[in-house]
Amino acid sequence: MSVPTSIKWEDNQLIILDQQKLPHEMVYLTLNSIEEVFDAIVKLKVRGAPAIGITAAYGLALGASRHETEKLDDFLELLQEDFRYLGSSRPTAVNLFWALERLMSVAHSSTSVNGAKTLLLEEAIKIHVEDEATCKKIGEFGLSLLENRRRVMTICNAGSIATAKYGTALAPFHLGAEKGKEFDVFACETRPVYQGARLTVWELQQSGVPVTLITDSMAAHTIHSKGIEAIIVGADRIAANGDTANKIGTLGLAILAKSYNIPFYVAAPFSTFDLSIDSGAQIPIEERNSSEITHLGEIAIAPENTKVYNPAFDVTPAEYITAIITEKGIIKPDYKENIAKIQ
Amino acid sequence: MSVPTSIKWEDNQLIILDQQKLPHEMVYLTLNSIEEVFDAIVKLKVRGAPAIGITAAYGLALGASRHETEKLDDFLELLQEDFRYLGSSRPTAVNLFWALERLMSVAHSSTSVNGAKTLLLEEAIKIHVEDEATCKKIGEFGLSLLENRRRVMTICNAGSIATAKYGTALAPFHLGAEKGKEFDVFACETRPVYQGARLTVWELQQSGVPVTLITDSMAAHTIHSKGIEAIIVGADRIAANGDTANKIGTLGLAILAKSYNIPFYVAAPFSTFDLSIDSGAQIPIEERNSSEITHLGEIAIAPENTKVYNPAFDVTPAEYITAIITEKGIIKPDYKENIAKIQ
Repeated sequence: MSVPTSIKWEDNQLIILDQQKLPHEMVYLTLNSIEEVFDAIVKLKVRGAPAIGITAAYGLALGASRHETEKLDDFLELLQEDFRYLGSSRPTAVNLFWALERLMSVAHSSTSVNGAKTLLLEEAIKIHVEDEATCKKIGEFGLSLLENRRRVMTICNAGSIATAKYGTALAPFHLGAEKGKEFDVFACETRPVYQGARLTVWELQQSGVPVTLITDSMAAHTIHSKGIEAIIVGADRIAANGDTANKIGTLGLAILAKSYNIPFYVAAPFSTFDLSIDSGAQIPIEERNSSEITHLGEIAIAPENTKVYNPAFDVTPAEYITAIITEKGIIKPDYKENIAKIQ
Repeated sequence: MSVPTSIKWEDNQLIILDQQKLPHEMVYLTLNSIEEVFDAIVKLKVRGAPAIGITAAYGLALGASRHETEKLDDFLELLQEDFRYLGSSRPTAVNLFWALERLMSVAHSSTSVNGAKTLLLEEAIKIHVEDEATCKKIGEFGLSLLENRRRVMTICNAGSIATAKYGTALAPFHLGAEKGKEFDVFACETRPVYQGARLTVWELQQSGVPVTLITDSMAAHTIHSKGIEAIIVGADRIAANGDTANKIGTLGLAILAKSYNIPFYVAAPFSTFDLSIDSGAQIPIEERNSSEITHLGEIAIAPENTKVYNPAFDVTPAEYITAIITEKGIIKPDYKENIAKIQ
């Protein structure tokens, strides 16, 4: 049993876990070119904001290594094309651009093509290593916060395979398994796309963490009947006042946690904060295709032409959040004050 | 557009809607014998406590009509066998026994075989007609309670096809459609068995009631973003203090309703009260097969051998319930006092 990871850099090759095949098959793909990286991102074989960023960074370095010119200006021009190409693979992924821009900036500081090629790969590895360290820190802070709480609920997959290693909300469980601290995790299946059932259950099983699957509708009864002691979730975006956008279903869990008087924790790297927005009211909620709800594969669940509302995220008001766990430390209310302080 | 019904007695024949084929096909089956009725109940072609009771009653009457003896004692013995046979089709269905016992008592008060045969059929028809009247009353009280509230959320299918007509929680919407009152209903899909997506959406579409499907995980965000004004649900069993067992997911909605300060209504016939139990703590929660959560048809969602918790019901404490709507009137807190009063 060991913590599963979805990205490896070995012998100058990028190896990724095909997350589309989970949980039924564990298929590792070797990506040798920028085109193969582009394809893996487009086809959602890589998912999770940090994992996408890391993979794209390696993709740009792989692309750069193939450019034969010796003139730095020509090289940077080709690199700019690669940047645009990779950027178009998942244009709404913030981490993807953040990682690619880090690499572009390194390239622009180079004095030779070969120097740039080396620096680009080093920067990709650095992003990869840093993300693992970030997640490990989050896991350690999470463990300290959870103390002797054993029965913990989570939703979606803020997991190891969505990051370099350990994940965010799942980091305390993976680290706990390494350190001999036992948890009983209850994973909400996370409709409509079942990331909890497909990914979180699989991932925790790989680490040897006891995990029980429930439907999202069973959360309230399970908290009550199984004595859940804490809820921990990831985050897609956190406003300056602590309001947190995350996978649809998170808000309901936060309200249940308050009602049952158990702590509700958000675990996320500091890069998740968007201090340009004052509150969650400014976070737009993406609506996704109705077929995610009405169909599973080829099976139609609902009648044809059913009207569907399919918001991808919800926003949990800061008042429901007991603490936000970042790699820089644990943030508690007053969030507005304490988020500004920790920068 | 009209309110769909699942049971008809026409030309001395029992016609039922095959609910297993919904929502993709509307197939009506003619049942000519007690054996066919038994089979329809076992294979879940009939579902919903009142609908099962009505169908079983017709089944017993159909069985009785075939017994050729002229000796009342022999007839009653054969009838007793039929009673046991039908009772074994769904041994945990309280309404099934309640309906069959009503017919047995009528048979025992008869003075001839032919008289008994006639009385049995009449009693089955009476149960059928009474249930429609009960549901209509519930719908009328529900309409008066909902007043000008238009956007209403529900879970599962406490619907017309689960009863003689109109249903319980859905009765106000069907009656509203007949009377020109418009609703916007938000139906929770109701994992794990999707009764909301499969049955409630279909049923309301048949009546011309605007209905939007959401996953159970979207309830909190939908209440907030769509301005839901009330939640109404059915009930499987109500304790003497008002605690209510209903489909898993109900409890979570009740907690959300309280949090968002909107009314939470339970709609159920008076027969749903179990005054032999003081509180919901005494209601056992059935756990169902894990494959309901891990699979949809042949499609495996979760990894093999995933540990699952699959409670079929939850219990909503009375403190979360704004009112209980019965055919005898609307019951408000103090429930213990007011339930006892209405008997």
